[in-house]
Amino acid sequence: MIIVLKPKASKTEADEILSKIEAKGLKPLYMPGSERTVIGALGDERLLGELHLESHPSVERVDPILAPYKAVSREMHPEDSIVKVGSLEIGGSGFAVIAGPCAVESYEQMSTTAKAVAAAGAHGLRGGAFKPRTSPYSFQGLGLEGLKILKQVREETGLPVITEVVEVADVEAVEEYADAFQVGARNMQNFRLLTALGQAKKPVFLKRGMAATIKDVLMSAEYIAAEGNNKIILCERGIRTFETGTRNTLDLSAVCQFKQLSHLPVMIDPSHGTGVRDYVAPMAYAAAAAGADGILVEVHVDPKEALSDGAQSLYPEQFAELMKQMKPFAEAAGRKL
Amino acid sequence: MIIVLKPKASKTEADEILSKIEAKGLKPLYMPGSERTVIGALGDERLLGELHLESHPSVERVDPILAPYKAVSREMHPEDSIVKVGSLEIGGSGFAVIAGPCAVESYEQMSTTAKAVAAAGAHGLRGGAFKPRTSPYSFQGLGLEGLKILKQVREETGLPVITEVVEVADVEAVEEYADAFQVGARNMQNFRLLTALGQAKKPVFLKRGMAATIKDVLMSAEYIAAEGNNKIILCERGIRTFETGTRNTLDLSAVCQFKQLSHLPVMIDPSHGTGVRDYVAPMAYAAAAAGADGILVEVHVDPKEALSDGAQSLYPEQFAELMKQMKPFAEAAGRKL
Amino acid sequence: MIIVLKPKASKTEADEILSKIEAKGLKPLYMPGSERTVIGALGDERLLGELHLESHPSVERVDPILAPYKAVSREMHPEDSIVKVGSLEIGGSGFAVIAGPCAVESYEQMSTTAKAVAAAGAHGLRGGAFKPRTSPYSFQGLGLEGLKILKQVREETGLPVITEVVEVADVEAVEEYADAFQVGARNMQNFRLLTALGQAKKPVFLKRGMAATIKDVLMSAEYIAAEGNNKIILCERGIRTFETGTRNTLDLSAVCQFKQLSHLPVMIDPSHGTGVRDYVAPMAYAAAAAGADGILVEVHVDPKEALSDGAQSLYPEQFAELMKQMKPFAEAAGRKL
Amino acid sequence: MIIVLKPKASKTEADEILSKIEAKGLKPLYMPGSERTVIGALGDERLLGELHLESHPSVERVDPILAPYKAVSREMHPEDSIVKVGSLEIGGSGFAVIAGPCAVESYEQMSTTAKAVAAAGAHGLRGGAFKPRTSPYSFQGLGLEGLKILKQVREETGLPVITEVVEVADVEAVEEYADAFQVGARNMQNFRLLTALGQAKKPVFLKRGMAATIKDVLMSAEYIAAEGNNKIILCERGIRTFETGTRNTLDLSAVCQFKQLSHLPVMIDPSHGTGVRDYVAPMAYAAAAAGADGILVEVHVDPKEALSDGAQSLYPEQFAELMKQMKPFAEAAGRKL
Repeated sequence: MIIVLKPKASKTEADEILSKIEAKGLKPLYMPGSERTVIGALGDERLLGELHLESHPSVERVDPILAPYKAVSREMHPEDSIVKVGSLEIGGSGFAVIAGPCAVESYEQMSTTAKAVAAAGAHGLRGGAFKPRTSPYSFQGLGLEGLKILKQVREETGLPVITEVVEVADVEAVEEYADAFQVGARNMQNFRLLTALGQAKKPVFLKRGMAATIKDVLMSAEYIAAEGNNKIILCERGIRTFETGTRNTLDLSAVCQFKQLSHLPVMIDPSHGTGVRDYVAPMAYAAAAAGADGILVEVHVDPKEALSDGAQSLYPEQFAELMKQMKPFAEAAGRKL
Repeated sequence: MIIVLKPKASKTEADEILSKIEAKGLKPLYMPGSERTVIGALGDERLLGELHLESHPSVERVDPILAPYKAVSREMHPEDSIVKVGSLEIGGSGFAVIAGPCAVESYEQMSTTAKAVAAAGAHGLRGGAFKPRTSPYSFQGLGLEGLKILKQVREETGLPVITEVVEVADVEAVEEYADAFQVGARNMQNFRLLTALGQAKKPVFLKRGMAATIKDVLMSAEYIAAEGNNKIILCERGIRTFETGTRNTLDLSAVCQFKQLSHLPVMIDPSHGTGVRDYVAPMAYAAAAAGADGILVEVHVDPKEALSDGAQSLYPEQFAELMKQMKPFAEAAGRKL
Repeated sequence: MIIVLKPKASKTEADEILSKIEAKGLKPLYMPGSERTVIGALGDERLLGELHLESHPSVERVDPILAPYKAVSREMHPEDSIVKVGSLEIGGSGFAVIAGPCAVESYEQMSTTAKAVAAAGAHGLRGGAFKPRTSPYSFQGLGLEGLKILKQVREETGLPVITEVVEVADVEAVEEYADAFQVGARNMQNFRLLTALGQAKKPVFLKRGMAATIKDVLMSAEYIAAEGNNKIILCERGIRTFETGTRNTLDLSAVCQFKQLSHLPVMIDPSHGTGVRDYVAPMAYAAAAAGADGILVEVHVDPKEALSDGAQSLYPEQFAELMKQMKPFAEAAGRKL
Repeated sequence: MIIVLKPKASKTEADEILSKIEAKGLKPLYMPGSERTVIGALGDERLLGELHLESHPSVERVDPILAPYKAVSREMHPEDSIVKVGSLEIGGSGFAVIAGPCAVESYEQMSTTAKAVAAAGAHGLRGGAFKPRTSPYSFQGLGLEGLKILKQVREETGLPVITEVVEVADVEAVEEYADAFQVGARNMQNFRLLTALGQAKKPVFLKRGMAATIKDVLMSAEYIAAEGNNKIILCERGIRTFETGTRNTLDLSAVCQFKQLSHLPVMIDPSHGTGVRDYVAPMAYAAAAAGADGILVEVHVDPKEALSDGAQSLYPEQFAELMKQMKPFAEAAGRKL
C-alpha cells in the first residue's frame, strides 16, 4: 500500500502513520520527496484497511497495490473455473447458449418458446418469475406460479433453468425449482441477497450493475464466494453511458478484464446489452470472438405480444439463424457450440 | 403517445396499430409523411403500455407524451409537500440539517457526535446500523444493537433519527426504533423493499442511485406512494461519471428537476456527493442556494478513527462552522435555518 | 416533427405555432389532450429548424421524427459505400487491417515497423506526424519531417498511409504526403477542420469523440460530405465512461448503429479502445465478428521505447499472431482477409 | 512515482527498471512484496515520463505522485490569481457576471441585449461571432462582421467583450476586436489553438470539455501558460453523463477542485450547464455559494427568435431578477456584486 501525504504534512504526522503500520505487523517504508512524502507498507495490506488511513487529515490519498478480492481472483486460482448448471458446463471447451423470454407469462408461452430454442440448439432456458420493473404499474411476474411453470418446462425439454431472485425470502423457493439463480443488474450490490446466495448450493449468474466497475462486480462475487459458494458466473449486460442509441453500452472488454483478474466463467447478455433486436446477433458473435464462455439471449414466441422487453427479444426463427451463424465464430475461438 | 413507424411499414401495419389504439378507447391519429408514417394516440396513454407497441416489428420508436409516474407528480399535486420526520418539518419554510456519522459504532461515539451536532444546531441525527459495504471484509454495521443505540441517543438529545434499511425483513425493526427510513443508492431499485416501505407508516428518504436518471428516481418514489405512503423525501447524493477527482458527481440541478416534476421535498447529501471533506461545506451552501429543502451531512467525533467514510466526515468543529456560514445562504434562499 | 406544449399553454399559443408551421409550407396537426396539447408537422421538418420552436416559452419539448443528417444517411444511399485509400478498398468484401505505431519517431522506426506489419499481412500503414498530446511537455510529433518519412516508407512497402491532421493549415501538406486523413477523437467537432477536409480530395477517417453519440459522429461526417467529399470512413475508438480498468470503453455496438443509419464503412480501433496491449487482439476479433469493415491497430518495433502509447502497442510478433488468428473470424463474417 | 510490477516480474527486470531510474538522477527504492514488487522513484518524477515505464511488459501500472501540470498549479503559486478582462477583475473580491446572447445575430440584437444587461448590472458582454454548431445546416455565426458589431457595442456600453475563437487563423482578428478569448468545450483539447492563445496577449476563458476531467482541463490550461500567457479563467459548463433531463450535468464541485489544485479564477456557465431556462437562476446562485468567481449567462432580447440556444437564454427581465436575487448569495460568499 502506498500512502501519499499532503504537502504540509509534518515529520511527526509521518511518524504516527509509520508506527501504526508497524503495529499491524507490516514493514513501513519512509520516502520523503521534495514536494510530497510517500509512505509504503509491505505485507498483507488488507490488514491496513482497519487503520482507515484515507481518513487521516494529513493523508492525500491511499493507493492499494493488491486487489481487495481474494477468493474470486485469478491469483488465488490460476486455472479457469468450470461451473455446472444442471448438466450444462460453463467455462470449459463449450460455448453455452441460454435462451428464453424475459418473463414467464404462461405455461403455453414458456413451453412453446423452450421447445423452439431447444430445437435450435440452446443449452439452457431463461425466464423470469420475479421481475424487477422500473414502474409499479408494469407486469411484475407470476412469482411462485412462474417457478412451477419453469420446472415443468425443464422436465419436458431437459433444458436446465436459470431464473432471477430478487429477495432473500425467495432464495429457498428459487433453489427448489430452478437450476441456477440470476442476480439482476439492480441487485448486484444487494449484499444481503449475495450473502444468502453464498449460503445456497446452486450456481449464481451475477449480472454487472449499470454503474458497476469491473472491480465492483468482483467484490460482489467475493460476497458470494466468501460464504462458501464458488459456483459463480459473471455476466456483462451493458453499462449506462451518455449514448442513447442503445439501451445500454455493451462493454465487451469486460470479458478480457474478468478473465485476467478472475478465474470465473464470463457470459454476455447481448439483449439487455443493446436493447435492440437487430443488434443482438452481431453482438452475440462478437461475444464469442472476444472469448466469452457463452451468451444469455432473449427469445419469445411472439415478441409483439411480450409483456416485457419485446423490443429486444428475438423471434424463434431469428434465434435459429443466430445459432447457425454462431458456429464458425465459436469454433474460431476454440469452442464447441 | 407518438408512434414512429419504420420507413418500410405498410398501410396495413399502420391500420393494425391504429385499430389497437382505438380498441383501448383512445383516439388514434394517422400522419403519413414523405419518409416516415407517424401515429398519434390521444387520451390516457398509460393504457397503451399494455399494447407493448415498442415490440412491434414495424415500429421504430414510441415517444410517450406524459410522465409514467402519477402520485408523486407535480401535476397531480401542485403544492409543495411537507413531510414530518418526528417533529422536524421538511419541505416548508425551514432548511433542515440532518447530521451524524456514517455508521453507528458504539454508544459513546453516537452520543458524543449527537450532542455535538445538536449543540451546533442540527435538526436531525443520521447513522447507519445496517451498512451496505462494497467489500465483504469491511465493517457491516451493528444491526439491531445499532438501532437500540440510535433510540437511546434520540431520547437524550431530542433529535429525530434517520437510518438505513437494506432488507424487507428489517423494515419492522427499523420502524420501531427510528423516525424515518433511508433507502440507500444501491437499493433505489430494490422494488420489494420499496413496496414494503410503501406499506409502512414512517417517512422514507429515497436516495438517488448512482446510475439513476431523475425519472428513475421518481418511478421508485412512485412504488412507495402507490402503496399508500406519501411521506417521501428525495435525496440527491451524486451520480457516477468519468470524473475521478470526486467520489461521485453531485448533480445539484437535480433540485430544479425534482421540484419542477414533483411536489416532494428534496435534500442533498454533499458528503457522499463529493467524498472529500473539504468540499462538503461549499456544496452544502450551494445546495441551499439551489433551493434544496435541506442537507444530510456526515459528522464524526473522530474521523481519523471512523470505521467507514472517514475521508468525507466533518470534524464537529467544522460542522459548527458550516452551520454558522450556512445561515445567510439559507436566508437568501428564503429559508429559516 | 412533434411539438409537446407545456400544461398551461393556451389555445392562442397553440394557434401561433400552428400558423408558423403552415407558413413554412408544412401541414400542421392539432392534437389537444387531457393533460398536454401536442402539435404535429408533416413534411420536410428540416425547414422547421429555422423556427427554433424549442425556444418558445410555451413549448415543453420538440421531438424530431427524421434524422438531421442527409448525405451520410442510409436512406439517401441504401447500398454500402466503398472507400478507396490508395489501392485499398474499405467497405467491400475484404476486411482491412491498418497497422503501425502511434507516432512517427524516426525513419528507422517507421521502416522497420512497416516492413514487419506488411510481412504479417497488413493492408495499410498508420503513424502520426502531428500528435495531439494531453501534456504540453510530451512529444508532439515530427511534423513535416514525419510526413516525409511516411511517404518514403510508403514507397518502400507499397502500403497506403493514413495520418492525422489537427489543423486547417496542415491539410494541404498532409494531402500531398499521405493517402488518407485521420481526424482524431479530440477534433471530431473541430468544424473548421471538417469543412476544410470536405473540400479536399483524399478520404477521411473520422474517429468518434470521447463524449460523442452516434448521431454526433454522423453530423460531423455530414460536415465533410456537405462540402463534397463523400470518401469518409467512420471509426469507433472507445468512449469515456466511469470504468477505469480500460483507457476507454470500446462500444462495438457502434458498428451495428452506424451500419443501420449510414452507408459509410466502419472501422474499429481496439488499441485506443482499450489502452491495454493484452485486450487488443480479442477486441479485434470481436470487431470482425460484429461486422466491422476493418481495424486500425497500433504496432511498434519496440513498445518499451515508444514515445507515445507504448502500453497499448503490439509487438510485431503479437501482430503477426493476431493476423493469423483473425482469418477464421473474418471469414465467418463473410470477409476475405 | 510508484511502479507496480506484474506478479511474475523477475529480479532482473526489476533491476533493469531500478537502473533506468537511477540513470535519470532519481533515487530508486526497491520494495519486494509477497504478491507484487513495487518500485519507488524519489525526485522530479516528470523526468521519468521520458522512460515510458508504463510500456514495459513487466510493469502492471505506474502511479504518479505529483500532478503533471506546473505553471497553473496552486503549489507553484499559492495565492489566488486575478485576471483582468478589459477593466473587469476576475478572481478578486468581486463576483463577475458576463451576460449576452449565444450568437451575434445583428447590430440591433447585440445593442439592445447589451444595454439591457448593462442596465441590470452585468460587468461584461458575451456573444459568439464564430459558432461551432453540431449541424452544418445551422447558423454558423457572422464571423468578422460579428466581431465588428461586438466592438461597436462595447464602445457604446463600456462592457468588456468575450467571444469565442475556433481556429488558429482567427486568433489575430479576435484579439483585435475583443477583450478576451473564449475556448469552447469542443476545442478544449485543440492543442494548436491553445498554443496560439498562449502566445497572444489577451486573457483566455477556457471551457471544460464535455468528457474532460478536472486534470484534463488543467493540462489544457498548462498549454496556454507554458507559452507565456497566464491570464486564464477556467470555466465549468457541464459534462456529459447519462442524465437526459438537462443538456449537460453541471459539476459545481469543479469550483472546489479547481480552487484546490490551481490558482486560476473559476467561472460557471449555468446556461450550457443545464440547457433549461428555468434552471439557470438557481444554478447561478449555487455557483456563487460554491465559491465561484463569477458566471457566464446567456441572455437574449427575444429568446423565441434566437438563432441558437434560445431554450436556455434568459429574457432580459429574468436576468434583471437574477441580478437582484444574486446579491445576498454573493455577499454570503464574501463577494461584492
